[in-house]
Amino acid sequence: MKIAYVVPGIMDKEEMQRREKMLKNWAFSDVKVIVTGVSEGPASVESMYEEYLSIPVTAKKIYQLEKKGYDAAILGCAGDPGLDGMREITTEMLVVGPGQTSMQLAVMLGNRFSVLTVTDSTVASSYELAHKAGVASNLASVKALNIPVLELAQNREETVEKIVSIGRKAIQEDRADVLVLGCMTMGFLDIAEDVQNILKVPVINPSKTGLKAAEALVGSGLMHSKKAFMTPPKISEGKVDKLDELYVRKDS
Amino acid sequence: MKIAYVVPGIMDKEEMQRREKMLKNWAFSDVKVIVTGVSEGPASVESMYEEYLSIPVTAKKIYQLEKKGYDAAILGCAGDPGLDGMREITTEMLVVGPGQTSMQLAVMLGNRFSVLTVTDSTVASSYELAHKAGVASNLASVKALNIPVLELAQNREETVEKIVSIGRKAIQEDRADVLVLGCMTMGFLDIAEDVQNILKVPVINPSKTGLKAAEALVGSGLMHSKKAFMTPPKISEGKVDKLDELYVRKDS
Amino acid sequence: MKIAYVVPGIMDKEEMQRREKMLKNWAFSDVKVIVTGVSEGPASVESMYEEYLSIPVTAKKIYQLEKKGYDAAILGCAGDPGLDGMREITTEMLVVGPGQTSMQLAVMLGNRFSVLTVTDSTVASSYELAHKAGVASNLASVKALNIPVLELAQNREETVEKIVSIGRKAIQEDRADVLVLGCMTMGFLDIAEDVQNILKVPVINPSKTGLKAAEALVGSGLMHSKKAFMTPPKISEGKVDKLDELYVRKDS
Amino acid sequence: MKIAYVVPGIMDKEEMQRREKMLKNWAFSDVKVIVTGVSEGPASVESMYEEYLSIPVTAKKIYQLEKKGYDAAILGCAGDPGLDGMREITTEMLVVGPGQTSMQLAVMLGNRFSVLTVTDSTVASSYELAHKAGVASNLASVKALNIPVLELAQNREETVEKIVSIGRKAIQEDRADVLVLGCMTMGFLDIAEDVQNILKVPVINPSKTGLKAAEALVGSGLMHSKKAFMTPPKISEGKVDKLDELYVRKDS
Amino acid sequence: MKIAYVVPGIMDKEEMQRREKMLKNWAFSDVKVIVTGVSEGPASVESMYEEYLSIPVTAKKIYQLEKKGYDAAILGCAGDPGLDGMREITTEMLVVGPGQTSMQLAVMLGNRFSVLTVTDSTVASSYELAHKAGVASNLASVKALNIPVLELAQNREETVEKIVSIGRKAIQEDRADVLVLGCMTMGFLDIAEDVQNILKVPVINPSKTGLKAAEALVGSGLMHSKKAFMTPPKISEGKVDKLDELYVRKDS
Amino acid sequence: MKIAYVVPGIMDKEEMQRREKMLKNWAFSDVKVIVTGVSEGPASVESMYEEYLSIPVTAKKIYQLEKKGYDAAILGCAGDPGLDGMREITTEMLVVGPGQTSMQLAVMLGNRFSVLTVTDSTVASSYELAHKAGVASNLASVKALNIPVLELAQNREETVEKIVSIGRKAIQEDRADVLVLGCMTMGFLDIAEDVQNILKVPVINPSKTGLKAAEALVGSGLMHSKKAFMTPPKISEGKVDKLDELYVRKDS
Repeated sequence: MKIAYVVPGIMDKEEMQRREKMLKNWAFSDVKVIVTGVSEGPASVESMYEEYLSIPVTAKKIYQLEKKGYDAAILGCAGDPGLDGMREITTEMLVVGPGQTSMQLAVMLGNRFSVLTVTDSTVASSYELAHKAGVASNLASVKALNIPVLELAQNREETVEKIVSIGRKAIQEDRADVLVLGCMTMGFLDIAEDVQNILKVPVINPSKTGLKAAEALVGSGLMHSKKAFMTPPKISEGKVDKLDELYVRKDS
Repeated sequence: MKIAYVVPGIMDKEEMQRREKMLKNWAFSDVKVIVTGVSEGPASVESMYEEYLSIPVTAKKIYQLEKKGYDAAILGCAGDPGLDGMREITTEMLVVGPGQTSMQLAVMLGNRFSVLTVTDSTVASSYELAHKAGVASNLASVKALNIPVLELAQNREETVEKIVSIGRKAIQEDRADVLVLGCMTMGFLDIAEDVQNILKVPVINPSKTGLKAAEALVGSGLMHSKKAFMTPPKISEGKVDKLDELYVRKDS
Repeated sequence: MKIAYVVPGIMDKEEMQRREKMLKNWAFSDVKVIVTGVSEGPASVESMYEEYLSIPVTAKKIYQLEKKGYDAAILGCAGDPGLDGMREITTEMLVVGPGQTSMQLAVMLGNRFSVLTVTDSTVASSYELAHKAGVASNLASVKALNIPVLELAQNREETVEKIVSIGRKAIQEDRADVLVLGCMTMGFLDIAEDVQNILKVPVINPSKTGLKAAEALVGSGLMHSKKAFMTPPKISEGKVDKLDELYVRKDS
Repeated sequence: MKIAYVVPGIMDKEEMQRREKMLKNWAFSDVKVIVTGVSEGPASVESMYEEYLSIPVTAKKIYQLEKKGYDAAILGCAGDPGLDGMREITTEMLVVGPGQTSMQLAVMLGNRFSVLTVTDSTVASSYELAHKAGVASNLASVKALNIPVLELAQNREETVEKIVSIGRKAIQEDRADVLVLGCMTMGFLDIAEDVQNILKVPVINPSKTGLKAAEALVGSGLMHSKKAFMTPPKISEGKVDKLDELYVRKDS
Repeated sequence: MKIAYVVPGIMDKEEMQRREKMLKNWAFSDVKVIVTGVSEGPASVESMYEEYLSIPVTAKKIYQLEKKGYDAAILGCAGDPGLDGMREITTEMLVVGPGQTSMQLAVMLGNRFSVLTVTDSTVASSYELAHKAGVASNLASVKALNIPVLELAQNREETVEKIVSIGRKAIQEDRADVLVLGCMTMGFLDIAEDVQNILKVPVINPSKTGLKAAEALVGSGLMHSKKAFMTPPKISEGKVDKLDELYVRKDS
Repeated sequence: MKIAYVVPGIMDKEEMQRREKMLKNWAFSDVKVIVTGVSEGPASVESMYEEYLSIPVTAKKIYQLEKKGYDAAILGCAGDPGLDGMREITTEMLVVGPGQTSMQLAVMLGNRFSVLTVTDSTVASSYELAHKAGVASNLASVKALNIPVLELAQNREETVEKIVSIGRKAIQEDRADVLVLGCMTMGFLDIAEDVQNILKVPVINPSKTGLKAAEALVGSGLMHSKKAFMTPPKISEGKVDKLDELYVRKDS
């Protein structure tokens, strides 16, 4: 089984290698996993606008990975930017969004989950994501750390403290019994277990569960539904030959 | 009051002029309305993938229109592609999505509405849009004509017939008491009144109601909520100087 | 376009003239708007019981306005008393309820709205109204000022202060990002903009938006759905000749 | 225990006596039940407009029954016209709406119920009533016989046949496992058992269950919640002395 | 009318006799009620695990009561353990669950109810029960006293105080306007009226309302729906002769 | 990683060995999986009553497996009988219900899923299960094959044909885009891929996905939430020493 993790924005090589190492470590021994990325996009995603900026170039990458024979691609941002669009343009390779997947795993473990997201600006879209994931009825709350993505890793200890303090509020005030980390950078800090030990509720790391869900779905012989994510008609009806032709430039 | 209607894709000049004329005709006499567009994008929107392709360049256009002093911009596609992102990057100019707006007007007129969309590939996203619009509980059904967008205008009569036949099913089988046309090209065919006369239920033309809603909201002194659609933190905290800097190219 | 605003209870002439002046001021130049009323009814509406008292005589007024050729009537109470009944007995003239309309405009602007109503006794019916309006899923909360309707205008400053303080709670505690004033007397105090400037979220004035929605719907060629608000069968089947005959007195 | 059944419209004396006899027959031996009425109102209720016409005079009757020491009043129309208003103006006497009560008993017996109502014009308000009753999530469907209220009793056999045929559709197509008769005149035809024997699902007769629910609630020492149905503030704060003063005539 | 109240666990004889006396006292004079029990099971029910332990032996008891000609059986635990299973194996005798029934009566009296349950360990299952009862949309909250069932009666005064204090919070913080006691032992303390007098909202005693609902339903000629609670196919198709044969022991 | 699959009823040894072989085949190479069972219980599960019969003895088995150091136990019935109770009595070993898990995986792959269950008698409980799983909002329908569990394997071809025909209806009439097989015996027929190839939508085999979900959750370091599934208080507070003491026999 071959799985690709795609960073939908700009990230330096060392960090990508560090993440690949962690993913390899987490994977079942039957599974090969690589990290790949794009050459342009947002520096981090803290708004829907930045999500949208990331999509066209990342979608192209996803499309190429399918051609290369990957069994699954993990969209490396917990906002799952453009997941539906990417599923429309793939027919053989499963595309997994770790944001929705984490929430879907949360309902396997408890009755009510809270999402801990990075900034206030991503709270509304996290509620929306839970709806897209089909599990909004079990969402207790979304709470923001208000630490910018690019600063999350600068002070690991402070980040853990903030997560614990906000997670505790979610448990006590919102009746959450499962917590979901709402950002891949939080995920790759590998702190879910620490928080779990302190708060005594499951804490879902989207970086790990994105991989594990991909393994489980591919291992079950399952793909995203092409009835739900239909191929764009211009492609399925042969009106364009290549994906790129869906994007037109005037007078060209 | 100055309102701009933005075509988020490639459209020839004659059609844009024809649409501008219609909009001017529909507008209250206190209102100035123009049609503008972008130089690249999808030829038509029949998938989420094409929606995503249209967003970055259209968002830039929206951003410029605010600078030019427009009171409102209408996003000229009934899928409202990227509406939340566009509302994040504007602070003075209202941005209206005609898809959501049409559904929101539908609940002003009846108890259950059905959306008549172009192709099967846009059905799922129409359900999602009703949820985003906050009116999913009153959505009776989404039904597709299965006429490609670019062929809708080729045979006006056939399109009307199809809408009447499918609308009748929505009324009889799904208990719809209001119909919403789910495509701007359908809207600019100006056929809502014809269908309304035949089926005896309100038929909402998104091209017209997008304008009317913009007039009503601006006329009420209202903007989209910046609490709901927060400015991207990198901008609001001054980490970047210009919108363009949110998009980075590696090694540049 | 001719629009009538109907006060469904007892109000002195000066206040009616003041309101008419404000409405004329708010209207597009293409629109003629008048204020009219009834000769009996509740002094103000702070309970469902008072709503019910207002309906029979106001409905008769609405019925007459249709005969006089008005394009729309605005029911001048934010509880929309008897709106469905009034829509049943009109077939050519749109009837608009400013309570529901304000909530429906709220979902055009943000993700979650709170209604600020007058007294605790109108809280439950405001929740019910949001359901009738089809937008209950986006209602964050209903909060009462606990200032009687007839005292709202006595101390404008105090009313504004109360609205600001309670609105702030709705934003902070209930995650509201849009506020709706739930009373026409609040609306005609014309304080929405003041509150909006302080709280930095859209504040919807039902007195203004009731008018603007009527303009938008009539301007779009739309009526309330007769499929949703059916004519009483005794009328549509010709069993009675006049509306008045639906009300019978024993042995008469 | 003393219970009054109030007909909220015009009905001839014989029919009222017949209904009283049936109710006495159904009541537990500890319970006294009478039928009473009003001297003016609609001849039958087949629209919201007629519901509203019935409320003011019926409410006055309800108010008087409380003064006379009744333990409960049953509002004799399955649309429960003005129930909330009537609960606002009573503080010692329970007021029961047989429409909502029937639906609430339905969820005691099965998973999904359908309401069989008289005419298409009462379908939408039946859905609304299920929501008010708090049991809309279990409502399978509302289906109309399309027999006018005043003709239901003219041909008992035909009415039964129609109910059986429409009830069967509700069971087969809408997955209903309980049926609710949505009209008091249907109820007093005393046909629920016949239909039940044919269709093999519980069939709820609102005329009987309205009484039984009143007995059960009074027997449990329970009243409707005055926190939910608050006394109109002008009364509770002593601004008016009598209920009648809430209704004002100009220049009087 | 003959009604049996079944204690689904171990209870001493004196307490069973005390409860029978209370039930006889509450019953209408036309009704005969007895208390019966089982010879093995949990000492009290404070978890789903204990609920499940109680079911097989109690179900057998229920099955026998039907054979003895009872009109209704009340399952004597407010968690309604195994109610659906017991309804599957009865065809002539109504089985009532006092937990769901109390919530269903709650929606007859107000808009939002809170359940006061014994321990934190029963909170989640109370939410689930409200869903099963079809009235989850009106559930304001579930709150735990955190007094073990077997200690509730030891200090009546303290229990009342705790209920009052927690009930007040439900009213003030969760907008409850009706309270439901979520445990039969609480019910047989007969304290609902005391709490009601202090908090001024209806307080539902499941021990009393379970009986009253049974009387009302049997008195209305109604049974639980066999369409909703189907007889196990092995029985209805004659594959086993006796209920006991559904339980098989290996090599026997 | 050690995973046990527990058959909660009577099954012959050959079939258990066959299933173990299949599970071993499906498992990742890092995973050890065994099949185990109980010595008494229902012959198959086609009703809630049979579910309840299976729980006490199976729960004891689960409890023992935890003591033996298993990382996860899969409850081998797609009704997930007693899952919450079993999670209450385990603190170190994850317990997975394949019914809920299959539905939770379904929302990872599409927008709307249908469950294909064995008999009409399990339809209602399948809807309930989707609610417990937190994904009811995406459930399109539950449809029964009406083939008894014990006959499913007798004619594999006929079973496939029935599934295809009913699955097609779910796709066409209920807009399902994912199918879930609602029975472990269906699962171990290993026919999901066949159906998938014919119907072109993902078909979820609960036997396989129960395993895959267990692997994914254990592999992510996650347990079911003890905040959601609390240890019975008598155990956590040390009032009983052993699980068995929760079940009392009179006079013993």
